[in-house]
Amino acid sequence: MDKIGIGLLGYGTVGSGVGKLLKKNAEDIRLATGRRVELRRVLELPGFSSPELDPALVTHDVEDVFGDPDIQVVIELIGGTGAARDFQLRALRAGKHVVTANKQLLGQHGAELLETAEQNGVHLRFEASAVGAVPIIKVLRESLVAAEVSTIFGIVNGTTNYMLSAMSQTGAEYADVLADAQRLGYAEADPTDDVTGKDAAAKMAIMSSIAFHSRVTLGGVAHEGIERITAVDIAHGRRLGLVCKLLGVARLIDGAMNVRVYPAFLPAAHPLAGVSGAYNAVFLESEAFDKIMLYGPGAGSVPTASAVIGDVISVVNTAAGSFTKNCLCYKDLPFFPSADVVSRFYLRLHVVDRPGVLARVAAVFGEQDVSIRSMVQEGGGDAAELVFLLHPAREARFFAALERLSGLDEVQGEPSVVRVEE
Amino acid sequence: MDKIGIGLLGYGTVGSGVGKLLKKNAEDIRLATGRRVELRRVLELPGFSSPELDPALVTHDVEDVFGDPDIQVVIELIGGTGAARDFQLRALRAGKHVVTANKQLLGQHGAELLETAEQNGVHLRFEASAVGAVPIIKVLRESLVAAEVSTIFGIVNGTTNYMLSAMSQTGAEYADVLADAQRLGYAEADPTDDVTGKDAAAKMAIMSSIAFHSRVTLGGVAHEGIERITAVDIAHGRRLGLVCKLLGVARLIDGAMNVRVYPAFLPAAHPLAGVSGAYNAVFLESEAFDKIMLYGPGAGSVPTASAVIGDVISVVNTAAGSFTKNCLCYKDLPFFPSADVVSRFYLRLHVVDRPGVLARVAAVFGEQDVSIRSMVQEGGGDAAELVFLLHPAREARFFAALERLSGLDEVQGEPSVVRVEE
Repeated sequence: MDKIGIGLLGYGTVGSGVGKLLKKNAEDIRLATGRRVELRRVLELPGFSSPELDPALVTHDVEDVFGDPDIQVVIELIGGTGAARDFQLRALRAGKHVVTANKQLLGQHGAELLETAEQNGVHLRFEASAVGAVPIIKVLRESLVAAEVSTIFGIVNGTTNYMLSAMSQTGAEYADVLADAQRLGYAEADPTDDVTGKDAAAKMAIMSSIAFHSRVTLGGVAHEGIERITAVDIAHGRRLGLVCKLLGVARLIDGAMNVRVYPAFLPAAHPLAGVSGAYNAVFLESEAFDKIMLYGPGAGSVPTASAVIGDVISVVNTAAGSFTKNCLCYKDLPFFPSADVVSRFYLRLHVVDRPGVLARVAAVFGEQDVSIRSMVQEGGGDAAELVFLLHPAREARFFAALERLSGLDEVQGEPSVVRVEE
Repeated sequence: MDKIGIGLLGYGTVGSGVGKLLKKNAEDIRLATGRRVELRRVLELPGFSSPELDPALVTHDVEDVFGDPDIQVVIELIGGTGAARDFQLRALRAGKHVVTANKQLLGQHGAELLETAEQNGVHLRFEASAVGAVPIIKVLRESLVAAEVSTIFGIVNGTTNYMLSAMSQTGAEYADVLADAQRLGYAEADPTDDVTGKDAAAKMAIMSSIAFHSRVTLGGVAHEGIERITAVDIAHGRRLGLVCKLLGVARLIDGAMNVRVYPAFLPAAHPLAGVSGAYNAVFLESEAFDKIMLYGPGAGSVPTASAVIGDVISVVNTAAGSFTKNCLCYKDLPFFPSADVVSRFYLRLHVVDRPGVLARVAAVFGEQDVSIRSMVQEGGGDAAELVFLLHPAREARFFAALERLSGLDEVQGEPSVVRVEE
C-alpha cells in the first residue's frame, strides 16, 4: 500500500486540529483512499512549542520538509503573505502538492501560486480559505465547472455575522459588541481584516475567480465594512422588516464581473437573514440550476481542519496530470464598474427641523433621477431624522445625490447609507 | 487533445437536457478538463423519436453503444430497474464508466452495480440520483469522507414538499393539492413513489450508504408517506408554531444506523421549515464540522442534467485507478431498530365527549411511561378532538399506547400521528 507523507507548516489552532484529525481518522482515510496518509514533519515557528507533539516530528528548518522525498503534500497553516508565500512557492517547485487555508495569500498572490503549481504539475488546494468546512471551492471547481454560475451572494465572514446578530438581538452599539466578541474569542485582538470586510473580500476574490473562470484579486474587490453600522440603523431596519448582514456579492452583469463586499439590509424572510452567529451561507445562481445554497460554520479550528483534510484526500485521490488545471482561469472577463450597478439604498439623514427641508432633499434626489420609495421623519424640536428607502438607481447617481445632500446647510453630521437587497 | 465519447441511453426530458448542455458548454468543458467531450451515440427507446436530434447519432441497438471503442462514458437515463439494470451492468463490463440519475435502481441494486464497476476498474457516478443539482454525493464521498457524518436530515423530495407547502398555504386537503400538482406537472400521473416516501427512501439509502460507509438498500429504509396528512393537522400544527415536512432522517445511534422517511412537524423557525415548493435541503451533522446544509432544486430537467454533466466531468478528471473506490462501503454497521428510537409525537384523537375520557387516555399514556407535554381539547356536543404533544418516548412505547387507545370505546376513527422534530 502506498504511503502519502504530509509536511505541516505551522502548528497553531488549525495545525494541531489537522494533526489530531489525521491521527484519529487514519483508518477511515486509508479505507477511503487506499493509501496510508501519515504526518512526517511539523515545522514549528520560532517561539512556539507544542508539548503534545511527538518530538521526532518537529523541525525548525523548513528544508527538512522540502528535502524529504517521502513528503508528497505540504500543508501551509502559517498565515500571512510573507514566509507563507515563500514556503508555498518553494514547496510547489520541489514538486509537492500544497494545501492551505491562507485566504489573504490566495487573494493577493493566487495567480503566481497557481501558475507555479501548474508549471510543476502539482495541485494547490485551498478549500479552507473560503467558507471553512463548507466545500464551496470543490463544488464550484468540479460539480459546477460547466454550469455558468452568474451570481455568488452570501455571508462569508463569521466574526461580523456574529457581531451584527448580537447588535440586532441586544440593540447594543458596534463598539460594545466588538469588545464582547473579542472577549469571547469570536473577534481577534486586531479585528481590522474582519470588520473592514477585507477577509470577506479575499474569500470573494477566490470564489469568483473559480466561478467566473477569470482572475479576480483582492485589489479587484471593493469592500466596505461594518464599522459605521449603528444600533439606530439596525432598529430602523427592523421596523422596516429588514435585517443587516455583511454580504459578499459577485455578479456577472452584461458579461462583466462586479465583485464586492458591503453591509446590506435583507428582508427578514430572506434565507440569509436567518443565518446567525458565526455561521456562513452562500447562494450560487445559474440558469442551469437556478439557486443552490451552502451553509455551515465559517471558521473554527475543527471545521477548518476538516476542510484541510478534505483537500488532502482530494489530492491523494486525483492522479497527477489527470486534473492539472488548478485555477481554471481560462477566461479573462472584464470588470463591471460599481458606479454603473443598479442598487437600492437605505439612507438616514440628520436635518435641521425647519419648513422646506424635505422639499430641498427631495429636489436633490429628483435632479439625479433617484426616486423615493418611502420616507419616515422622526424626532422634533430643532433636529429631525429622515429615513429613506429609495427605488433602484445607478450607484453613481445615488452617490452624486448624497454628495449634494451632504453639502446642504440643513443636513448635519454624517449620513448613514446601507444597501438594500431583495 | 484527448476526446471523450459519450453514449446516452434514453433521450427524454433529462436526456435531451444533457444533450443540449453538452453542446452548449462544450468549450467550457474542454477548457476545464483539457478534453473534448462529445456525444457519439443516443439510444432511443422504441416508440420515441426526437426530431431535433442529429439522425447520425441515433441508434436503436444498444450494442452500437457498448461496442464503440470511442465511447468511454455511458449515461443511463432510461429509469426503472429492468432494462436500465441490464444496460448498466453491460456497460460496466464493457469497461465504460457509467453516469446515472436512476435512484430506484441504485437504491435496490447499488451493491451489484458498484461491485461490477469496481471489478472492471471503472467509475459509477450517480449525483443526479440524490438531490438534483445539489452535489451532496460528491460532498459526502470526497470532502467529508473522513468527517464521520453522524446525521443526514432533510427534505429530499420536491413533489411532496410542493404539496405540503401548498396545503399549508391554502388550507386545502391532500387530494385537491395532489390533483393541482399533477395538473401543473409537479406530480406524475402515478404519484405513488413520491407520496409514499419511496422516492425519498431510495435517496436516503444512497446518501446514507456513502455517509456511513455501510450498505443501506431501499429495503433498509422504513418509509411513511404524506397520504394521511390532513388539512386539520396542518392547521393544528400552525397553531402550535409547527410546519409539516416530509423528512429523510438517517442517524447513527450507538454506532448503529437508523434510516427512515416520515412526515414530521418542525418549529416554524427551523431552517427547513422555510424550504418551500419544489426545493430540497439537507443538513449533514458531524462532530468535525457541526452542521452543514445544502439547498437547491431537487428535480427538474435542467438541474438534473447539470448534475449529470458534473458527474461526467468528475469521471473525465479522475484518472482510472486513482480513485477506484466507488462505494466506500468498507464498514458493515448494524441497523438500529426504529422501535428503540426516542421520538416526540403529535397525536390527534376523536373521542366521545363524556366525563372521564381524558382520564382514561391519560392513564394509557401513563402505563407506557409516555408523558404529555401539552393537550388541547376542541369541539363539543357528542364528540371532541384531543390534540396532544408528547414528550420524547421510545417509539415502541408510544405505539403500544396508541394501540391501546385505538381499542378504547371512547376513541373513534383513525388517530392522526405525526412525529415532531426540534
